[in-house]
Parts: sequence; structure tokens; C-alpha cells
Amino acid sequence: MSRLVMKFGGTSVADLDRIFNVARHVKREAAAGHQVAVVVSAMAGRTNELVGWVQEMPKVSGSNAPIYDAREYDAVVASGEQVTAGLLAIALQSMGVEARSWQGWQIPLKTDGAHGAARIADVDGSDIISRMERGQVAVVAGFQGIGPDNRVATLGRGGSDTSAVALAAAVKADRCDIYTDVDGVYTTDPRMAPAARRLNKIAFEEMLEMASLGAKVLQVRSVELAMVHGVPTFVRSSFDDPDSIDSSEGASPVGTLICDEEEILEQQVVTGIAYAKDEAQISLRRVADKPGVAAAVFGPLAEAHVNVDMIVQNISEDGSVTDMTFTVPQSDLDKATKVLEGAKEQIGYEVIQSDGGLVKVSVVGIGMRSHAGVAASAFNALASKGINIRAITTSEIKISILIDEDYIELAVRTLHSVYGLDKD
Amino acid sequence: MSRLVMKFGGTSVADLDRIFNVARHVKREAAAGHQVAVVVSAMAGRTNELVGWVQEMPKVSGSNAPIYDAREYDAVVASGEQVTAGLLAIALQSMGVEARSWQGWQIPLKTDGAHGAARIADVDGSDIISRMERGQVAVVAGFQGIGPDNRVATLGRGGSDTSAVALAAAVKADRCDIYTDVDGVYTTDPRMAPAARRLNKIAFEEMLEMASLGAKVLQVRSVELAMVHGVPTFVRSSFDDPDSIDSSEGASPVGTLICDEEEILEQQVVTGIAYAKDEAQISLRRVADKPGVAAAVFGPLAEAHVNVDMIVQNISEDGSVTDMTFTVPQSDLDKATKVLEGAKEQIGYEVIQSDGGLVKVSVVGIGMRSHAGVAASAFNALASKGINIRAITTSEIKISILIDEDYIELAVRTLHSVYGLDKD
Repeated sequence: MSRLVMKFGGTSVADLDRIFNVARHVKREAAAGHQVAVVVSAMAGRTNELVGWVQEMPKVSGSNAPIYDAREYDAVVASGEQVTAGLLAIALQSMGVEARSWQGWQIPLKTDGAHGAARIADVDGSDIISRMERGQVAVVAGFQGIGPDNRVATLGRGGSDTSAVALAAAVKADRCDIYTDVDGVYTTDPRMAPAARRLNKIAFEEMLEMASLGAKVLQVRSVELAMVHGVPTFVRSSFDDPDSIDSSEGASPVGTLICDEEEILEQQVVTGIAYAKDEAQISLRRVADKPGVAAAVFGPLAEAHVNVDMIVQNISEDGSVTDMTFTVPQSDLDKATKVLEGAKEQIGYEVIQSDGGLVKVSVVGIGMRSHAGVAASAFNALASKGINIRAITTSEIKISILIDEDYIELAVRTLHSVYGLDKD
Repeated sequence: MSRLVMKFGGTSVADLDRIFNVARHVKREAAAGHQVAVVVSAMAGRTNELVGWVQEMPKVSGSNAPIYDAREYDAVVASGEQVTAGLLAIALQSMGVEARSWQGWQIPLKTDGAHGAARIADVDGSDIISRMERGQVAVVAGFQGIGPDNRVATLGRGGSDTSAVALAAAVKADRCDIYTDVDGVYTTDPRMAPAARRLNKIAFEEMLEMASLGAKVLQVRSVELAMVHGVPTFVRSSFDDPDSIDSSEGASPVGTLICDEEEILEQQVVTGIAYAKDEAQISLRRVADKPGVAAAVFGPLAEAHVNVDMIVQNISEDGSVTDMTFTVPQSDLDKATKVLEGAKEQIGYEVIQSDGGLVKVSVVGIGMRSHAGVAASAFNALASKGINIRAITTSEIKISILIDEDYIELAVRTLHSVYGLDKD
């Protein structure tokens, strides 16, 4: 017998038929003797509708500043998960599975006070554990908790993954199953490279790089949390026939297990190729090469909430002026340019240049730590295809390369192939 | 300066424009210097949608018994009011009015454990009072509270009126304003008798009879609660232009005040004519006239949740057998008949007869207590129009008469006229 947390997203609970399908998945696990908690999102489209109302309301009221109180946003938007949780509990009950729904404040799942994008502070799993031990399935409204002000706080979009992992940690679950619209994590996006194949296992650190780089299977925060608490997290499909799956102890369902690297016996050098679209590049030409100039550039951008990613700064030849290049999301390009133009005197650059329509392609793998030449292979492979590299950044387990968007498929396929990731 | 509770129903908050309109009403009262709490229902149609899902879910799950856990019903359905409260708080804030939303469990508004139709046990008004005193408008999700099991409990359909009155009692409000789609309580339904006129005041006891007899302006329970706690309750229109209304101290807005009878200076003998459609009559012929027979008839009906209303039993001529006649809602007629047929031996009647398509017309007025001949006037007036009376029941302030549905308009108009209620 295992203790499981199962998580289903908005597409998997989009209507009553799909909620029933989720209930069948849950019933299968309960029938196999496992203790089960389920975390659900709002029915697909519902959160967007609620968020739309919240954003529209100040305009309807004739306000010039279309802002809204994040605490009220939370009160409105969290209602979507509450509905799904109640309906799933009803579905389970009518299938003979004992179940009850839980809202964030009932558990309680405590958060900090950052309404709209709260972080989980503490989850009290005791009540749910004792009910799971008595055979009751806990159906938990994802995405929400209760803040220090005793008001509903949401975890930010996609927060239900994080809810699920935090709950799994709190109830000491053996595994957190994330049911989604794909059957696992792939070596790269199959739409980019048809030769992509599903990974049976991936290390937390690798998944973190894959997730933050655009493999949108899992929220980055949920992977961080899973890594910190060592929660084995299993990505699997919610569209498989619930009754065709073997859930008995020791069975190997289809999916990808995100786990400690120690548990991955045959570690590849490179695990996957990720990419992020809609990047823009800004270059400041002939910036004075002196201490404090980086702060002068990135301070104002941070204040304007511009998310700066890859930063490249060369040492200047004569020690007086240099060029500074970095990337921002395409959607922030205008804002970033205005901020930098406004700070031109403080920074002291001569010309500002920018380019949009770029993508970042990344090679990810824990094996890189102990293997030399991984970066060189990437550069050679891209060069052989005539793909121009605009910037490079590296970390211990990742190499990121900025290129023109036109070359994205070619670059991903080339890298996927050069590291031996193509299907057998 | 007064302390006010304002209540708006589903039609008044059906979309963002109407919520904005409600915010204008609230802003007007706050700007006039009053301390304000607002109770809101779910946006029109939303509760029906949620209830529909709850009822449909067990069928989708393939259950033969389409029942559902009332606690889960509550968790799902209460979300509608939560959304409206948050949106109204946002609307108020964007109009410069300080406001925050409250869900039932946050106040807390404590109920008993009868999920789906809970009764209010206790409302803690302290937190809301201290915030009202600091100038913050409390926007309260109606229809909901928290049960002894720490789960959301709803008060039954239309429960937001009850929420509002209970909150008014808890915060010691000077008045509870019920904004609705009519501008007050009328002497009778204007669709029945065009001569009907709006009452400026009506006593709690009278309103209770009017409400329970079919004048659907206010929930019966909310009137009971207002009477018990002595909350002056003012029924008024939500469709008036918010800015055309004078809310200063001592102003007399359009509407009907439900209050203690002592506060009504010129008490009429008869205040109004109410009616209830879709009644059915059951007669048991030649029932043994002995102690315990009434219990034998009405015990099984109560067990089957059949709501018996008017009961007429004559003393038999020879003391051996009698006829027993009573009314039930038309929708319960089949069930009631089956129950009585099943209990034929225990009761010991000879024949069961029933008629549907009946209505109950009632004459209501506190003045009846001290005036003789009120009932006789009604019987004479109906007789003069050739309307056959099928049954009569009376209370201290009410005479109810059962007639064929065909005569409803004629009966209502005749009685309305005979008691001098027609417009001047």
C-alpha cells in the first residue's frame, strides 16, 4: 500500500464527463489499496472567466486606474477550484468511494501574504492523514490557501501543481502523480523534433531547467518544492483509459518520474533539449567599463519588473568602454527600452540596440558535470548547419544558446540528434 | 448617521454593469455618512448552474441513486456569492469607497449542521463593526455560513435575505434595506388587482402571513428573524437611479418598512390580500370519529415530508364517523394519496377523494384582532360573486379561504375592494 497525491489540471476536469473520468482514475488507485488525496484545478476556462471579471470590474466602475485589490482577486478566482473539488467528491461518493472536499483554509494550507502569487508557508497534513488512514479520499481545491490575514490567497496561475507537491510533502506521500495532457516529459518538444522520446526518469535539477526553459509540463515552483522535500513526482496522462492501468504495488505505469539523481541508474550526459520563444536582445554599446555599471543598468529594469535573462558582458580591450548584451521577454522589450533610455545619463552608454524574434535553445543534463566537450559539440553542430549564435550562457547542467527564431526547429533537431537523444 | 445593512439579490448583481449600479447605491449611503454592510447573492443564473452540476454529477457517474452529499452541495453552490462579494468590493474600491469582502466562515456566521438548509446559530459582528466604524464597507457573501463541522453551510434558496437580517441584528444596524425588483410590499399582487397600492409600513406579523402566503418579496425566515430581533426591514427597488435618492438622515425613500406594529400609527383593519396557487384538497370520507385518528392520518404524511396546510374536520352527527378534509401542495398530491392508501387500514376511512387546481386566498391584518365581522364580510363578498368556498381556516390576524383557481383574480379583487384597500 502506498500513499498517493494525484493532481488533475483544468483540461482534465473541463466538464462533468471529464470529472467522472478523473473519479475513475481515483477509484482505481483507492481500489488498489492506496491512500489517496486528489488536488484539482478549476474547470478549464472558468479561471479565465473569473480573472476577466476581476480585470473588467474597475473599468466598468469608471476607474481610470484599472487596478484591483489582490485579496479580492483571490476571493473571486479561488472559487473555481472549490467547485471542482465539490463535484469530484460527489462523483466519487456516487461511485461508492468515500470522499470529501477540502478548501485551502480548511486544511489549512497556510501561505504568506502575497495575495495573487502567494507562497506556501505551511501545510497541516494531520487531519487529512488521519482520514486517509480511515479510507477517505481527500479532494483538495488546488491553487489556494489562507494568508496571515485569514483571507483566501491564491498561488498564482498554475499553482495547483505546487499545491499538489506541498500536500504530498505534508502527508508524507510516497509519490505525487501529476495527471496532464501529455504522457510524460520528453527529451524535447515532439512538435519540434519528431524523434523526441519520453524519459522514464529525470532528475529534479534537470526538470527544473527543462520547466523553466519552456517545457510547460510542470510549474517551476512545484519542481523546486518537490526537490526540496524529496517528493517523487510522476508526470502521466489523464487521457488514458482509467481501467486499463495497473495500479498494484510494483507496477510500472507509463509516465516520467522526477526524482533524485541518485535514483537514475543509467544517467545520460544530456537529458533533453528545451527552448523558450519570444525572446528579445538588448545591447548597450560603449558603456563605461567601471564598477557599478551593471547595477546602473539592471537596477532600473528590476524596479520596472523586467525579467532579464541571459547577460553577456565582454572585458573591453583597453579597459575604458565595453558592450553589454542581455535578453528580456519580447513583451517587455518596449518597457525595457524606455527604462534604459530614461537612465541613459546614469548608465553612460552611447547607443542602445535591440532585436526581437529570438529564441533560446538549451541543452540540459546532469551528466555534463562530469563530461567535457558538451558545449563544444553544440557549437559545432549549430555551425555545421549555418546557425548563427547570438549569445551563450552556461550553468553546471545547462548550456543556453540564443538564435534567430527562424532556426528553432533546425537547432532543436540538430542538438537532439547530436547528443544521441533520437529514438532508437 | 445610521448603521445600515443593504441586501441585493441575484437579479440586481446579474452582470458587471448591475454590480456597478449596486456599488453606486452603496456609495450613496456611505457618502451620506452612514456605516454600511452589504449582503449579496450570486449573479443571476449562477446558482442554478451550480445546483444543476451538483444534481447532474451523480447521474454522470452512473449512480442509480441520484443523491449527493449536502456538504459538497454547499461547498460548490456557496462559491457564487463569494464571486459577487469580491467583485462588488473591487467596484467600490475603484470608486474610492473603502471596502472588503467577507465569506461566511470569515465573519464567522455560524450555522447548525443542516447542510443545504442550515439555520443561523450565531453571527459574530465584532470585527465588521470595528471596521464599519473606521469607514470600511463590509461586502458579505449571502446565503452561507460555517457549520459545526468547520465546513461551508448554505441557508437554502433565498437565504441571502436571512443573512442580511441576521447580520443587521449582529451589528445592531438601524435598518436592513432589502433591494429587490419591486419598490415595496403591496396590498396585493398588482397583476391580480390593478388597484393594489404600496404600503408604507407593515407589521412583522402581517408580513409573515403575506410572505408565507405567496407574496414573494421576502423569505419567510428573514421576516421571522427580523421580528425576533426587532430589525426594521425596508423593502425598496434596486432599479431606481442610485443618484436620484436622498439618503440623508430623516429622508423618506420609497419603499415599505416592516416594523413593530406599535410603530404603525394608522392601523388598517385589513392590510393585504395574499394568495397561494397550486393547492390540492384531499377528503377522507367516513373516518371513524375517535381519538387518535388525526395522528393516524397526519403522522404518515409528515414522515413522507408532505406539507399539510388547511385542515377541516367536522363533528359527526352521531359521533361515529366523520369527514376529514385538508390541503397539500399540488406537487405532493400523488405522494400524499399513495401514503394515505397505504395507511387505509390503520386510519379506517371508507373513501378517499381529491381535487387539484385550487388556490388559497387570505385576508391579513393585525386590526382583525379588535374588529368583529371581518370574516363575515369576506364570505358575503365572495358569495355575492358566486364564488364557492371549499374550506376556511382562520388565525388571529388572517382568514384563509380555499376556492377554485378559476376565480382567483375575481376573489382577490373583490376582497381587496371590500376592505377598502383600493387606491384612492
